[in-house]
Amino acid sequence: MTLRVLKFGGTSVGDPDRIRHAASLVAEHQATGAQVIVVVSAQAGETDRLIGLAHLLSSDPDPRELAALLVTGEQASAALFALALGAQGIRSRSYSAWQIGLLAEGASDQARIRTIEARRLRADLKQGFVPVVCGFQGINRRGDYVTLGRGGSDTTAVALAAALEADECQIYTDVDGVYTADPRLIRTARRHEALSYPEMLEFAAGGAKVLERRSVELAGRHRVPLRVLSSVGRPGDRGTHFIEPPPEAVRALCGVALSRNEAEITVLGIPEQPALAAILLGPLSAGGVEIDLIVQNRARDGRVDLGLTVPRPTLDRALALLGEPAGAIGAEGVISTRDIAKLSIVGLGLKSRPELIARLLSTLAAERISVRMMATAEIKVSVTLPDEDGERALVAIHRALEF
Amino acid sequence: MTLRVLKFGGTSVGDPDRIRHAASLVAEHQATGAQVIVVVSAQAGETDRLIGLAHLLSSDPDPRELAALLVTGEQASAALFALALGAQGIRSRSYSAWQIGLLAEGASDQARIRTIEARRLRADLKQGFVPVVCGFQGINRRGDYVTLGRGGSDTTAVALAAALEADECQIYTDVDGVYTADPRLIRTARRHEALSYPEMLEFAAGGAKVLERRSVELAGRHRVPLRVLSSVGRPGDRGTHFIEPPPEAVRALCGVALSRNEAEITVLGIPEQPALAAILLGPLSAGGVEIDLIVQNRARDGRVDLGLTVPRPTLDRALALLGEPAGAIGAEGVISTRDIAKLSIVGLGLKSRPELIARLLSTLAAERISVRMMATAEIKVSVTLPDEDGERALVAIHRALEF
Repeated sequence: MTLRVLKFGGTSVGDPDRIRHAASLVAEHQATGAQVIVVVSAQAGETDRLIGLAHLLSSDPDPRELAALLVTGEQASAALFALALGAQGIRSRSYSAWQIGLLAEGASDQARIRTIEARRLRADLKQGFVPVVCGFQGINRRGDYVTLGRGGSDTTAVALAAALEADECQIYTDVDGVYTADPRLIRTARRHEALSYPEMLEFAAGGAKVLERRSVELAGRHRVPLRVLSSVGRPGDRGTHFIEPPPEAVRALCGVALSRNEAEITVLGIPEQPALAAILLGPLSAGGVEIDLIVQNRARDGRVDLGLTVPRPTLDRALALLGEPAGAIGAEGVISTRDIAKLSIVGLGLKSRPELIARLLSTLAAERISVRMMATAEIKVSVTLPDEDGERALVAIHRALEF
Repeated sequence: MTLRVLKFGGTSVGDPDRIRHAASLVAEHQATGAQVIVVVSAQAGETDRLIGLAHLLSSDPDPRELAALLVTGEQASAALFALALGAQGIRSRSYSAWQIGLLAEGASDQARIRTIEARRLRADLKQGFVPVVCGFQGINRRGDYVTLGRGGSDTTAVALAAALEADECQIYTDVDGVYTADPRLIRTARRHEALSYPEMLEFAAGGAKVLERRSVELAGRHRVPLRVLSSVGRPGDRGTHFIEPPPEAVRALCGVALSRNEAEITVLGIPEQPALAAILLGPLSAGGVEIDLIVQNRARDGRVDLGLTVPRPTLDRALALLGEPAGAIGAEGVISTRDIAKLSIVGLGLKSRPELIARLLSTLAAERISVRMMATAEIKVSVTLPDEDGERALVAIHRALEF
């Protein structure tokens, strides 16, 4: 029997009408004879409202309590979704993380899913129930609530699809697929019908907001067929499908992504030595700071400079964590810039087309936008820029690279 | 070491300022060297908001999902309360029902607490943490959320106090104790400094809204010292204390209570037979309808009439449940009236002062208010009236009985 995991984001469950509409999509899936598991986010705006409340009460909210507060958002929308399904004659049960043994480990606001007990969900499916699972949340070994980080509901959906060996995981969102660039910023952006996992992975890591990076990673690792589509799309709309292996005709580039939530750190004049990166970066990871780009360059006197980007809200924490190891290692100093944007071009054919990188750089130069750091990966090139130039750069690059 | 359970109702956690104030009361308790456990309700209005949302999505919400939805209210206020304590330098942890094994059985919206695992709470207290427990919620043996019914947070507080053998359970509310009648309706009502459990029990059952009946029952059974006081009261305010045995000088009457949420059912012309009440009332209890007053009278031809009151929202369910057994037992018919108020006078000396009952009835007659049913218990007399006459009757009786 076909099993599909359907994930509905905050906008798709934003008010009673939208919940009813999403429930009707579930009904359509069930009418085809498929078994369905639903994963929901909190109603749009609810997570921010709760975070705002927490900050009214505490300048530095305890992570355990913040997680316990935030998970109520998903719990409410899961129960509301189950009620909406019930009203359409579909038997349904909502589940919090603890009720399906969804164990996650790590920082309370960035935990990673370890295990899911499929028993109760399988029993429900067998009896014709549609389980509605709270996204974004887990419990740790101590029995405390944790959250999976922003966009974590996508990860919940993919993890469930993997645990239950679902035939497809469908992510319903407010755009109807993955575009060559954010269609809200670039009117001429085109939608992809299919993308390979590595492309989507780099695209997500580059800041395309359609899917959370970890969920793509997880889908690739467990070979979960993934599809992004609009919850308000036209009937028959197929969204963007992620496939493995990549489509036969390899396109050079699949898109441009802009992330405006970055900050830059450079550790200057480090005496060269083995395990340099480990000494500097270990404490950051241990302290829960996600490092994105890492760039190392030779400096004078046999020394090196190490450049990093981190999510902007974690810059202060990152600097605090770097101080001691940077001193211990004999670095000359640490400098940072808060308001940085990262622009990435992604494509399976990038490595074989060095002229694309040249065109990227010449376009930025023509726009008088200074490139600060540059890092190249197998299928991605990222540059950092002043945040204020980000959108202008995106428009220019999308035009120059002829998507 | 002294251990106190402090319960804060919806108004006391209604906004960030009130939460901060309530947290400062906890700090005062801790400053005296006492250990403290906090129990919270949902923020004022939140439960009704969630019920409203549920009814937008379903005309007859599934009880399991409604419970899962409603418990988010307490979970959010518990986390917010813990954050407020943290901001005042008090280490704290919030707990949902499942995290402290708070098992409850029965209907999903009227469950009764069976057990509480005290282990995690005791460990917290030992380490100087203030646990903040979600009121009103429990989990059942299937691992589903259930709620304890309106006012159930009081019951949570008393059950915790009993399970942890606390020295006192303090119920903080928006009135500063228990009055001879609702002070919002009767300006001349006086506050009691002390009341016995039986008095408070009948008073609560009569509809005094200060404490939920089950919580008083539980406090009496487990000998939990209970105190009702205002969260915005003057310093040194002692509220109303419940004591056992009753105060030495027994007062005849302790108050008048009005409940405006009643409905009346009469089963007419039942052939007299043993176990009549069990046959009729069994299905109601099994169906989760709480029966309040039960009055039986002789009718003609060796038959009897049986009158009941039930909470108004359960009238339709009660009538549906009564149909079959009433027919089977040979009753001539079932009639009902939806909008009924119940007025009760309560006092330890009531039985020895029959003139008080006479004065109750003559006062109502003078006000041209018709008494529909009357039931007398050891320390309480209740009458039912048309709902529209309820407040007028309360004023007249409070004056006539010279409280």
